[in-house]
Amino acid sequence: MPYSFLSHLECSACSTRHDADVVQGLCTCDAPLLARYDLESATSAVSTSKIAERSPDLWRYHELLPVRDPGSVVTFGEGMTPLLPLSRLGGSVGIPRLLMKDEGMLPTGTFKARGAASGISRAKEMGVTAIAMPTNGNAGAAWSAYAARAGMRACIVMPEEAPDITKSECVATGADLYLVKGLINDAGVIVADAVAHEGWFDASTLKEPYRIEGKKTMGFEIVEQLGWRVPDVIVYPTGGGVGLIGIYKALLELQALGWISERLPRLVAVQATGCAPIVRAFELGDRVAEPWQGASTVAFGINVPRALGAPLVLDALYATGGIAVAVDDEELLSDQQLLARLEGCFICPEGAAAVSAIRRLRGAGWLSANDEVVVLNTGAGLKYPDTVTVDVPTLRPGERLPRTQEA
Amino acid sequence: MPYSFLSHLECSACSTRHDADVVQGLCTCDAPLLARYDLESATSAVSTSKIAERSPDLWRYHELLPVRDPGSVVTFGEGMTPLLPLSRLGGSVGIPRLLMKDEGMLPTGTFKARGAASGISRAKEMGVTAIAMPTNGNAGAAWSAYAARAGMRACIVMPEEAPDITKSECVATGADLYLVKGLINDAGVIVADAVAHEGWFDASTLKEPYRIEGKKTMGFEIVEQLGWRVPDVIVYPTGGGVGLIGIYKALLELQALGWISERLPRLVAVQATGCAPIVRAFELGDRVAEPWQGASTVAFGINVPRALGAPLVLDALYATGGIAVAVDDEELLSDQQLLARLEGCFICPEGAAAVSAIRRLRGAGWLSANDEVVVLNTGAGLKYPDTVTVDVPTLRPGERLPRTQEA
Repeated sequence: MPYSFLSHLECSACSTRHDADVVQGLCTCDAPLLARYDLESATSAVSTSKIAERSPDLWRYHELLPVRDPGSVVTFGEGMTPLLPLSRLGGSVGIPRLLMKDEGMLPTGTFKARGAASGISRAKEMGVTAIAMPTNGNAGAAWSAYAARAGMRACIVMPEEAPDITKSECVATGADLYLVKGLINDAGVIVADAVAHEGWFDASTLKEPYRIEGKKTMGFEIVEQLGWRVPDVIVYPTGGGVGLIGIYKALLELQALGWISERLPRLVAVQATGCAPIVRAFELGDRVAEPWQGASTVAFGINVPRALGAPLVLDALYATGGIAVAVDDEELLSDQQLLARLEGCFICPEGAAAVSAIRRLRGAGWLSANDEVVVLNTGAGLKYPDTVTVDVPTLRPGERLPRTQEA
Repeated sequence: MPYSFLSHLECSACSTRHDADVVQGLCTCDAPLLARYDLESATSAVSTSKIAERSPDLWRYHELLPVRDPGSVVTFGEGMTPLLPLSRLGGSVGIPRLLMKDEGMLPTGTFKARGAASGISRAKEMGVTAIAMPTNGNAGAAWSAYAARAGMRACIVMPEEAPDITKSECVATGADLYLVKGLINDAGVIVADAVAHEGWFDASTLKEPYRIEGKKTMGFEIVEQLGWRVPDVIVYPTGGGVGLIGIYKALLELQALGWISERLPRLVAVQATGCAPIVRAFELGDRVAEPWQGASTVAFGINVPRALGAPLVLDALYATGGIAVAVDDEELLSDQQLLARLEGCFICPEGAAAVSAIRRLRGAGWLSANDEVVVLNTGAGLKYPDTVTVDVPTLRPGERLPRTQEA
């Protein structure tokens, strides 16, 4: 049996078919390519019960992933992150059946590890030896680590204001790191120039077809962890949008396999009010998102003013009866703090934005008390120490803590 | 069938039997208590194949854990961390069969989550509502998070020089945090006084019997991940030593269950030359480790000058034909860097100390090229950003990367 049932690549805009077994970037029409599988053959090769017997990482879905030879897999054991009930927070916002998929528990501390695992593995399989990419930090850290594990060179360009720890990660794992006094799109221009000149593989968001394949395993896992059924709603913090596109793609593939029924969860894209091009486009009913001017938010990972995948995100929202919603920085920082205190989960600001969105949508009646809602926390709070102020007493040895009770 | 086969507590020094179903601290003889199980009944209730069907967290071993009611379990989905082949590093140090158990992929980013999961769950089950503990940072961060999830109050005292992120974690998850201008033993004195006065539960290392039960699941997982067999050697960075004691306890329990054969892996305790009380005791052939004066190492988690569990660590080393070895800060920082570049694994300095120990032991002939060696990385490098120097170019938008090739 083949390890992968990858059959070809298909343009997401013009549907042109492309060969999956040569290195590919965008379609000739400049739209992203999507991996397609021979799902009919896959159904006879694998079943949900077979998957249940495999080790708890994302490669358990290998028939539906693009890597053809198991020897090409570059892995740190990523995947099968916890799906945690948040009963106290759920109670406080009026959604008792609230669950959080905690992507902070992945290699490099964010969901970016999934895309790097599939992207780097497939690139290695195709003979790529050097990649380049723009990033808001976490993707660069992940791709740099996987590139090192693959024995591949990585050139990473990120905004100067990206989280410091992501810079340390890139340097530690041996990437060539450059900072730019600008935003991720400025980094993208620099990478595009370098790629054209140096012949490196362009690993920019959606400019290569396989990052999304790793991301889609979030969708597979949510469905498997719920016993091969879907929740009512999935809420996702959206920058480049690959995670949401991936989850939607996963759901459609599971439908085609006959592993889930026709009902799909409503998908929710969450952005920050300081950078909300997809929310604006959704509110206008558009399929195209105009670039956002003067983008700024503390949830740096979703500070993406111009996203190549915006039409695909919007399609997923429209097709599932979903919605796009923006939240303020103040709001998301407050929910980050609340979640840590109520549930002990110290999450990233992007994940906190998704929590704030749930509160808003429940308040507006878009979510009901009966909805089973899965919120994606895309990364560990560990990577954002600046979101916490530490102002605590310092004692000398032999001193006592303040007494709260009389002797 | 009972969820847990916990039968009683037994003193590790005088073997006195204690009731496991009331709150317990040390034995009356001041030695730590160990949880004992009805292993004979457990063998008829659970098997390795039953365990294989369970979800990938440490609660899959619940018959051999101390929590009696599944409703008492306080969890973030911890456990089943990856066991990664390190073939490039293994090749470079002359140990082709080198594996790393990566505990950085746990909630709060370190192996401390295991002990907090079992310790807090059992404390909750016993009606505890407030805990206090001294810590070098990571244990405090973990116990603070689990306490929040349990709805319990936590009072944490740590050295001023503990990793900054661990302070942020404690504050974020709502603990009462105090710093001390001293070492962990100074923090311990402050906690002991507070506990005596306030009636809080003392969660200090080995002063309560259940932290070790969570830690022992590292041993269960290594054995399960190798197909229910043991490696030749397990190498562990040792501060308080609970992880090593726990792994040894796990191995003895698996033997008693008949799930592994009589051969045990040789256990290796790794310390820093700046704080090596257990290494000194081992070299003297002692069972007691004298406190280390002027303790100092960049591997802050193992900067423990006086460890209550030292006799138990030393017993485990002697019983398995193991060894204790100390490495320099310079050496471990260099190996931390090497591992990140060769394998993409950005690990903590304590884990790096264990890597350096392997290099030393191979050089000395104590390890051979045929040995299958498992090294424990106890935490994510993410928590130690100061171990990396970031000195990279900053560009303005529109600038180019330096050309490496002529047009």
